[in-house]
Amino acid sequence: MKVLSRAQIEARLDPLAAMAAVCAGFIAYSRRQVQLMPTQNFQFPAIGGECCVKSAHVHDSPYFVVKVSTGFYTNPARGLPSNNGLSLVMSALTGEPVALLQDEGWLTSIRTAIAGRLGAALLAPARVNAIGIIGAGTQARLQLEHLQGVTDCRQVHVWAREQAEIDDFIAAMAPRGFAITGHRDPEPVVRLSNLVVTATPSRRPIVMAPWVQAGTHITAVGADAVGKQELDPQLLAAASLVVVDSRAQCAAYGEVAHAVRTGLLQKRQLRELGALLARRRRTPRSDDAITVLDLTGLAVQDAQIASCILGR
Amino acid sequence: MKVLSRAQIEARLDPLAAMAAVCAGFIAYSRRQVQLMPTQNFQFPAIGGECCVKSAHVHDSPYFVVKVSTGFYTNPARGLPSNNGLSLVMSALTGEPVALLQDEGWLTSIRTAIAGRLGAALLAPARVNAIGIIGAGTQARLQLEHLQGVTDCRQVHVWAREQAEIDDFIAAMAPRGFAITGHRDPEPVVRLSNLVVTATPSRRPIVMAPWVQAGTHITAVGADAVGKQELDPQLLAAASLVVVDSRAQCAAYGEVAHAVRTGLLQKRQLRELGALLARRRRTPRSDDAITVLDLTGLAVQDAQIASCILGR
Repeated sequence: MKVLSRAQIEARLDPLAAMAAVCAGFIAYSRRQVQLMPTQNFQFPAIGGECCVKSAHVHDSPYFVVKVSTGFYTNPARGLPSNNGLSLVMSALTGEPVALLQDEGWLTSIRTAIAGRLGAALLAPARVNAIGIIGAGTQARLQLEHLQGVTDCRQVHVWAREQAEIDDFIAAMAPRGFAITGHRDPEPVVRLSNLVVTATPSRRPIVMAPWVQAGTHITAVGADAVGKQELDPQLLAAASLVVVDSRAQCAAYGEVAHAVRTGLLQKRQLRELGALLARRRRTPRSDDAITVLDLTGLAVQDAQIASCILGR
Repeated sequence: MKVLSRAQIEARLDPLAAMAAVCAGFIAYSRRQVQLMPTQNFQFPAIGGECCVKSAHVHDSPYFVVKVSTGFYTNPARGLPSNNGLSLVMSALTGEPVALLQDEGWLTSIRTAIAGRLGAALLAPARVNAIGIIGAGTQARLQLEHLQGVTDCRQVHVWAREQAEIDDFIAAMAPRGFAITGHRDPEPVVRLSNLVVTATPSRRPIVMAPWVQAGTHITAVGADAVGKQELDPQLLAAASLVVVDSRAQCAAYGEVAHAVRTGLLQKRQLRELGALLARRRRTPRSDDAITVLDLTGLAVQDAQIASCILGR
């Protein structure tokens, strides 16, 4: 059994190959060519911790993958990163363990950012006047970084709860060519931007429907477990197109779950990202459309990026 | 992260500590002191393969465990063992990986045999005249080995489909002091024994109700996934006590699932092993009672035995 460290994994990742693999994974999923297991979700409320176990096998792949990712949000106070994790790659031919990828959660971050990029490439308005980022953590930064391949816009508004988080975000991302304005109130971030990404572990809506201008696309990345929520459910009701990574998963515990449960949105209105990606062209949108992409994170993304690290 | 090989794990296992830990796990589970995740179950029908991912956290334990076990039943033709697997031990305090136990499925076999032993110690008739073993593989052998601590009886009847399997079983187990008779028909094995263990991957009933004499206890180990079955459902209807490792899991896909689905058995009639073990004494049984224990395998067993390997 091969054991790869985070450094070895980072050195092996080919960004274009990873993007192609994750894209193919979404398409295979929406074509029902994936054994995708129900997510196992541990909660450790006393310590602000959680863990997801996501497992998948893409038909005809020689591998299947069991991915464990953790978020322990009191870790930083003890000098540890919040996120951690690893992937087990198993042989789909013999059941033998093939590799342990000790990526410390890095592959989960990357495959999530890739999903945001793939979605924005399909759904972003033709002319982005400003990018709004809700949240300032690792995933918020990766999402912005990955949007560089989708739009030429470098005007960014960012919101975070603490000024220090905003300052750190700007210090990290401004050198990459972004002109960034920090805000302690999410409203102007949303009002001033027509491509918005939310990437927080929030359990209450942060983005309210009346703030969203016509012609905006919003990618919501944070809600990946029961109880998490970043968007006002009215926003989902108002959207002309709601795209999800998985209809089943998002209706159960994604951002859209709140709107589906209360009847603001019907499950049959949800379109799957894999079905749109299969068309291989930008999704048509009118100038005043509001579109939302809800990403809960699919095990097939983990399976595809892990297989990509192992190579042929 | 500690990585332990199978040899290191075998050397570290203290059988009594493991039995106590698995026992405590069943009790904690039945007291609802365990986060036990729904099993993820892959099927690879083209190649006769399957994989279970079982994960659990016992309240107040510093660890939670994700266990992957595989059964690829065409492996032996290629010179590989059918079963494989490993356990990931994670910190419930920080989410960091703590250890990888590369036990190749051995811990799963052991914790299953321990469950059989714990159940037989509670439920076996006071006087065992012969032990019947249905199946002759690794688990069948481990079950018999573990019954040595429960009964003085050394008379054994064994059934397997192939004579070579029976011969191998006898060659392995006779030196341990058992007087073993092999059978190519399961009926006499059941008729001649009042403590029966079934340990096969069968998908059709092997043990028929009319063969079972009054006063018999049967432990059914094989049915651990949808579609598996070793016992005639009429046998479950006729039993005076049906014990399960998990009411939810057994009703969904255990041996009893077939009888529950067809209404021969009510879910509320099922008693949980952990609740019986909590009483710390033999379960009273009349001389003519027939009792059945259905073991589907609980993630809490995996969590407890893995924690046991790591020690304090």
